[in-house]
Amino acid sequence: MPLSPEQQAEIDELRSQPRETLRSVAPGMEAHLYKALPVLDHGFVRVIDYMGDDAAICQAARVSYGKGTKSVQNDEGLIRYLMRHWHSTPFEMCEIKLHVKLPVFVARQWIRHRTANVNEYSARYSILDREFYIPTPDHVNAQSVVNNQGRGGVLQGAEAARVLEILKADSNRAYDHYEEMISQDGQDGLARELARMNLPANVYTQWYWKVDLHNLFHFLRLRADAHAQYEIRVYADAICKVVADWVPAAYGAFEDYRLGGATLSGKALDCVRRMLKGEAVTQEDSGMSKGEWREFEAVLGGSE
Amino acid sequence: MPLSPEQQAEIDELRSQPRETLRSVAPGMEAHLYKALPVLDHGFVRVIDYMGDDAAICQAARVSYGKGTKSVQNDEGLIRYLMRHWHSTPFEMCEIKLHVKLPVFVARQWIRHRTANVNEYSARYSILDREFYIPTPDHVNAQSVVNNQGRGGVLQGAEAARVLEILKADSNRAYDHYEEMISQDGQDGLARELARMNLPANVYTQWYWKVDLHNLFHFLRLRADAHAQYEIRVYADAICKVVADWVPAAYGAFEDYRLGGATLSGKALDCVRRMLKGEAVTQEDSGMSKGEWREFEAVLGGSE
Amino acid sequence: MPLSPEQQAEIDELRSQPRETLRSVAPGMEAHLYKALPVLDHGFVRVIDYMGDDAAICQAARVSYGKGTKSVQNDEGLIRYLMRHWHSTPFEMCEIKLHVKLPVFVARQWIRHRTANVNEYSARYSILDREFYIPTPDHVNAQSVVNNQGRGGVLQGAEAARVLEILKADSNRAYDHYEEMISQDGQDGLARELARMNLPANVYTQWYWKVDLHNLFHFLRLRADAHAQYEIRVYADAICKVVADWVPAAYGAFEDYRLGGATLSGKALDCVRRMLKGEAVTQEDSGMSKGEWREFEAVLGGSE
Amino acid sequence: MPLSPEQQAEIDELRSQPRETLRSVAPGMEAHLYKALPVLDHGFVRVIDYMGDDAAICQAARVSYGKGTKSVQNDEGLIRYLMRHWHSTPFEMCEIKLHVKLPVFVARQWIRHRTANVNEYSARYSILDREFYIPTPDHVNAQSVVNNQGRGGVLQGAEAARVLEILKADSNRAYDHYEEMISQDGQDGLARELARMNLPANVYTQWYWKVDLHNLFHFLRLRADAHAQYEIRVYADAICKVVADWVPAAYGAFEDYRLGGATLSGKALDCVRRMLKGEAVTQEDSGMSKGEWREFEAVLGGSE
Repeated sequence: MPLSPEQQAEIDELRSQPRETLRSVAPGMEAHLYKALPVLDHGFVRVIDYMGDDAAICQAARVSYGKGTKSVQNDEGLIRYLMRHWHSTPFEMCEIKLHVKLPVFVARQWIRHRTANVNEYSARYSILDREFYIPTPDHVNAQSVVNNQGRGGVLQGAEAARVLEILKADSNRAYDHYEEMISQDGQDGLARELARMNLPANVYTQWYWKVDLHNLFHFLRLRADAHAQYEIRVYADAICKVVADWVPAAYGAFEDYRLGGATLSGKALDCVRRMLKGEAVTQEDSGMSKGEWREFEAVLGGSE
Repeated sequence: MPLSPEQQAEIDELRSQPRETLRSVAPGMEAHLYKALPVLDHGFVRVIDYMGDDAAICQAARVSYGKGTKSVQNDEGLIRYLMRHWHSTPFEMCEIKLHVKLPVFVARQWIRHRTANVNEYSARYSILDREFYIPTPDHVNAQSVVNNQGRGGVLQGAEAARVLEILKADSNRAYDHYEEMISQDGQDGLARELARMNLPANVYTQWYWKVDLHNLFHFLRLRADAHAQYEIRVYADAICKVVADWVPAAYGAFEDYRLGGATLSGKALDCVRRMLKGEAVTQEDSGMSKGEWREFEAVLGGSE
Repeated sequence: MPLSPEQQAEIDELRSQPRETLRSVAPGMEAHLYKALPVLDHGFVRVIDYMGDDAAICQAARVSYGKGTKSVQNDEGLIRYLMRHWHSTPFEMCEIKLHVKLPVFVARQWIRHRTANVNEYSARYSILDREFYIPTPDHVNAQSVVNNQGRGGVLQGAEAARVLEILKADSNRAYDHYEEMISQDGQDGLARELARMNLPANVYTQWYWKVDLHNLFHFLRLRADAHAQYEIRVYADAICKVVADWVPAAYGAFEDYRLGGATLSGKALDCVRRMLKGEAVTQEDSGMSKGEWREFEAVLGGSE
Repeated sequence: MPLSPEQQAEIDELRSQPRETLRSVAPGMEAHLYKALPVLDHGFVRVIDYMGDDAAICQAARVSYGKGTKSVQNDEGLIRYLMRHWHSTPFEMCEIKLHVKLPVFVARQWIRHRTANVNEYSARYSILDREFYIPTPDHVNAQSVVNNQGRGGVLQGAEAARVLEILKADSNRAYDHYEEMISQDGQDGLARELARMNLPANVYTQWYWKVDLHNLFHFLRLRADAHAQYEIRVYADAICKVVADWVPAAYGAFEDYRLGGATLSGKALDCVRRMLKGEAVTQEDSGMSKGEWREFEAVLGGSE
């Protein structure tokens, strides 16, 4: 259960006080505000604030297009056109602020997306809580044998049990020692900025993360992808649901052109053209490497 | 008059429809929303949207500091502490979106601030209006004789009249020719993306500009400064008024620590220390160049 | 002729003095250093400095992958893998610094690429030269009738002559007046920062532009594209030649996966799959709009 | 000892092969190239590549100043002027690429500087080494009693010994378990991307980090500061030495205006002016809070 009763009470209070504004309001987002979407065993994603909606994307685009856009009749068509042609600036006109609780090893991947604003809980100032990510048994996987950076099948029986036992025991021991070192009971107490170094990467941290919609889509394209590590993908999936409610037209275009689309190389396009003319193209005469060809076949087969 | 009756009607309509939101609301900004603050002869600044307020800065900072911030009792004190110690990330948690109409030569300075989102009216797609910045007679200045990049005294009499006459005549002639070239009346009509190249840098353009509060303060520090060109400074001044109404505590700290403050070098601090001990320090024994010493004296004299 | 004898002498001198370095050296770039590649009537692109080469991309990638990259046997294969999977950070490890002379209306498009470093010649400090872009007759086009933001056929006969005559006469008159206003001969002389506003957007400016290879590829993908305005595309084309000599393997991958590739939407991929099974798909049953379908057919036909 | 014999041999080989280049060469940096500067117990900083020197800063500035700068006689004066007036773009024209080995908790602070390029060793692909930061006894400090985010005095006797014992034992146990979990000896072996979560924040990682000189100075100002955590400050100090050898004039200006300088608020400047007139100003009539006044006194006393 990621939320304490106090946190739930705070959320309930914030949600009980609607106020008047002249700004654009996205009804789908109002329903999300402040509520925590649980992710993993102790994590969550909470919408703290947002700016703009589908109409704001079009409004910004029409400043740049001015009177020339009369032919684009409706907002959804314009949004799909912008997404298809990589016109990213109108999507930057929407902004979202999230409160996220996440394991440190996930935070380390996440922060590599540089075009965002972040305020993280500081373990120099403050004491971290005793909260660690321990995977459920169906997410304790072996190293992949085909992909150096992925996981293979789920570990079974005694091996899985041993892994979970180690993760739990080491986390708890590390936290016991963390508390022991910073304690000022009968001793000076180690500085927090030093003591934190004993905590493993599955300890939870939290931050406020603010990003524009274009850069959020970029994050989601990479992190909601099947090749992303499961533990960050579940955060991306939770955010996808929020964005679908916030800017339905933009999210629809994102699903079609980015999540569901694929980029084909010049060589791959050439193969498609030959295949459509009836030619039986093989990897050997495709100009592609074996790896590329395997990926190309997956795209054509619909499994990618 | 920068706004047409249609534009005024559109603004009036937008301002007549308050809606409910659960987000934080800044009353000082609601009063500004959509209204155009006139700048120069045809320009304006309009607030289109905003995210956050003084409390949002503190809320983000308190995620960072967690329990460690209890010692800072109130929001204003915390905000001043953050500003003083260059803790910029909490200020990034507020965002503003402006609609700005401005001459192209001002836009060219403005766009050099890279950490912002921009949608500009496109003269490839659309036809620009016949609107040019013509300075008022009290802002037609000579080249400065002390500063290569500034202006000196106001031009007088016949010289001033000649300048204004040239600017007006050339602007109008350029626009006549622009219209003539793109006209499809009895001819094919030149492409807009080519015709625009005949228009001078005092033609007005417009854009949506979205920026976070930290980067906005950076922009304002440089552009509301006495050394900034007058024509961009008046935009910065207009935005300063808006920000003071939006986040009064943050703006107060910005005024004290940035606009009203000064950075002293190690050499300058050393001179101050010697002077406070009663020593009569001169440029020759200050370790500073003549230019530095002049600026140092201006800071101590309060004229900088 | 874009270079004066003094400039050519300066370049010759710089090229005559090789020095020793322990850094990686890209022979293809050494041949370009300082030389001006002419673009348009008075513009150029000059390589001032560079960092890294194809090997530096792989070296950085191998820090990421450590022992995991042993399976990718050679550098070219690794570079193609990185490009195909949008692993952009290793490409960011190469950097290039260019000196570019270009018309202001081109500079205004160019500067929208924010992730770069720029030092522009300042018309507040300095006096601009009498150099204006005047298109050659084969690049004076009509407004496109199918694309609001493009050009159609080349203007003919009297209309083309009139356009060129206007552009030349207005440029020269604007510059005469610019000189007249700033002159201090028998008058105070208007400040440069004001006088420049009389100059049209085809006046030439120049800047130093420094960018990493990943962001340069992004720039080239958009600006070397058939939909980019001709006057910026010729700069992108010139830079493409330089990059091909600098990092041949990375440029080859860029050509195949970006310039020569295409992104297909989920709907488009679905159509391809149906077509490969022998189905005759039409726009009506494709799920695509007419515009999308037209672009899709162009991709399959190889004309895009 | 941070370098293995293989690494030292690789460095020696790279340093034995000077090549010819037409680019600008900084002799002070050539002496650093590839060599590892040891930091902490297993860390290092190595210069991998660089672009530009003091002259390159001036060259870029003079494009932006053009003919107007004849009065700035020499490069050092120009560089000091640029630094004093926050003209940051010419400093962006120099670039440095470092290979850094550092504990994860230091990497987490470091990465918050967003305007840089990073390639980190990936623990999804590769196996981390058994290397952990264990502080020397003189850097095992108590929590500060005056500053929530700092350290106080060095821990003594049994308490210090207990801390070091815990850090060593927990690190080794965590690594034993890490190895045990990923082992494929008689079991499937846990995926690396999961096993890494058991490792504490004092484990060493490494990355390539590339940054321009302006953003590097910003990093150094914050991280070479007395308030920065000791473990990142030693990296900043090592880099300061490198930069002083690379761009001596720019580093000198940075030392005087940034590291050795201080920003005074409007209120503080007002107090200085009153004090210089002979007035005895106290905190009560300064307009400053107690915290501000304490910092102000430290600046005037030279202890800040």
